[in-house]
Amino acid sequence: MRLVQFQRHDDDGGRIRVGVEQGEGLSVVDLKAFDPSMPSTMRELLELGGEGLECAQRAVASGQCVVDRADIQLLSPMTGPEKVVCVGMNYRDHCLEQNAPIPKEPIIFSKFPSAITGPYDDIILPSESQEVDWEVELAFVIGRRGKHIKEEDALSYVAGFTVANDVSARDWQMNRNGKQWLLGKTFDSFCPLGPALVTTDAVTDPHNLSIQCLVNGEPVQSSNTDQIIFKTAALVAWVSKFVTLTPGDVFLTGTPPGVGAFRKPPVFLKVIS
Amino acid sequence: MRLVQFQRHDDDGGRIRVGVEQGEGLSVVDLKAFDPSMPSTMRELLELGGEGLECAQRAVASGQCVVDRADIQLLSPMTGPEKVVCVGMNYRDHCLEQNAPIPKEPIIFSKFPSAITGPYDDIILPSESQEVDWEVELAFVIGRRGKHIKEEDALSYVAGFTVANDVSARDWQMNRNGKQWLLGKTFDSFCPLGPALVTTDAVTDPHNLSIQCLVNGEPVQSSNTDQIIFKTAALVAWVSKFVTLTPGDVFLTGTPPGVGAFRKPPVFLKVIS
Repeated sequence: MRLVQFQRHDDDGGRIRVGVEQGEGLSVVDLKAFDPSMPSTMRELLELGGEGLECAQRAVASGQCVVDRADIQLLSPMTGPEKVVCVGMNYRDHCLEQNAPIPKEPIIFSKFPSAITGPYDDIILPSESQEVDWEVELAFVIGRRGKHIKEEDALSYVAGFTVANDVSARDWQMNRNGKQWLLGKTFDSFCPLGPALVTTDAVTDPHNLSIQCLVNGEPVQSSNTDQIIFKTAALVAWVSKFVTLTPGDVFLTGTPPGVGAFRKPPVFLKVIS
Repeated sequence: MRLVQFQRHDDDGGRIRVGVEQGEGLSVVDLKAFDPSMPSTMRELLELGGEGLECAQRAVASGQCVVDRADIQLLSPMTGPEKVVCVGMNYRDHCLEQNAPIPKEPIIFSKFPSAITGPYDDIILPSESQEVDWEVELAFVIGRRGKHIKEEDALSYVAGFTVANDVSARDWQMNRNGKQWLLGKTFDSFCPLGPALVTTDAVTDPHNLSIQCLVNGEPVQSSNTDQIIFKTAALVAWVSKFVTLTPGDVFLTGTPPGVGAFRKPPVFLKVIS
């Protein structure tokens, strides 16, 4: 299933709703319209566990409560998670690009949840940075609470996969804030996410997916998730040694080569005038 | 007012409630018992703004709905914030202790909200670290949504002050995870908070408070918040250049000297056997 969050244009209150996209770019089944007892946000839906997903399946099978794409706006499939966990230097080809050694352990940092924005929303270019860069990433979302999760059990804690951009202000990430990456990574709108959360059962192999970033229609990053060093299960196991994972937690799994900072000369995002 | 979160021993559901402590260690007025329309968590209370605080004042004035301390357990006064914002190297005397220069800008890092634990709860010593250290800190909590807040307006965005411990696994903070501090700072239970959120109007000068940390009853840190380099208003203004602040966001303002890592020889927390 392709789970989404959306707003209906006919809803003056602008409330978030959870739905199932019938296919990429197709109509969306409105879960709460199908069953008013269902929650309104993805995080709450995931907290329901199997019960929520079964209801979503019934809603799709019913053929009812289908909303046309013209009548809605898709939001990020996850808003307000407890954690946005990010991984640095996690593609072999991205390490080669910068002549950096392959890390022996995952390098974990974070964004604040306030950085999350919708898949088609503008990135807000802050006046505080002159070096805003792109980083397309495979993301996944936790579906089940756990701590000290074993790698062999880890995929059962993953609700599904989506796409993120780990937008990064390189000046702040690399040269300021005592070299702690947080500020450069967490400006408002620096975490576009979505459009859909594709449930784990619908992804044959998350580590054999092509991944691409376009800037103004031009491909700037193009790789495959088979280049990932610490894969989904390893990341779940690693991070859960430190913290209790909870439904809705978002992981960004690192970016492939082709970011602007390592181009010669470097290239950064600009306001389109 | 001294705002608290608590559980009643007679509540099998273990639900969180918001209350007002009638004085340090005294009985607690149960807000939801006084007015069932009031929310159950501090974050929701703060989101109500003035309306929530006025209801709390009426509840205290009524003399009703008072619960004895023996019948409740105090929790952290804030749970589930969107952000836990931390500041490094923010006491003059702590910089001197480690022969470090006084920072020219705040150094901002974070913990995940899952690290928050109650003021009287145990710190869980993780088997993954051999160097768990203490860091008592003045904390404050945001009461109003804002971005690009001016320093002169900043205090009006602060709901109140409390006490935190920025518990830190030095091995992970300093030598692993690519020197990104997050993992060493965010183990479960590494952010004791509370007991009370003292509203801003009840704190004459947050930057003239003695601050102390005891380990096994022995004072190990003892300073004054007048040593803070970037004070409350400066921190609110600085961080709001990057991110939208929202009610409930917790700031830890840095620690004074006396941490275990800089003792000779270093001293770390141990399990009491």
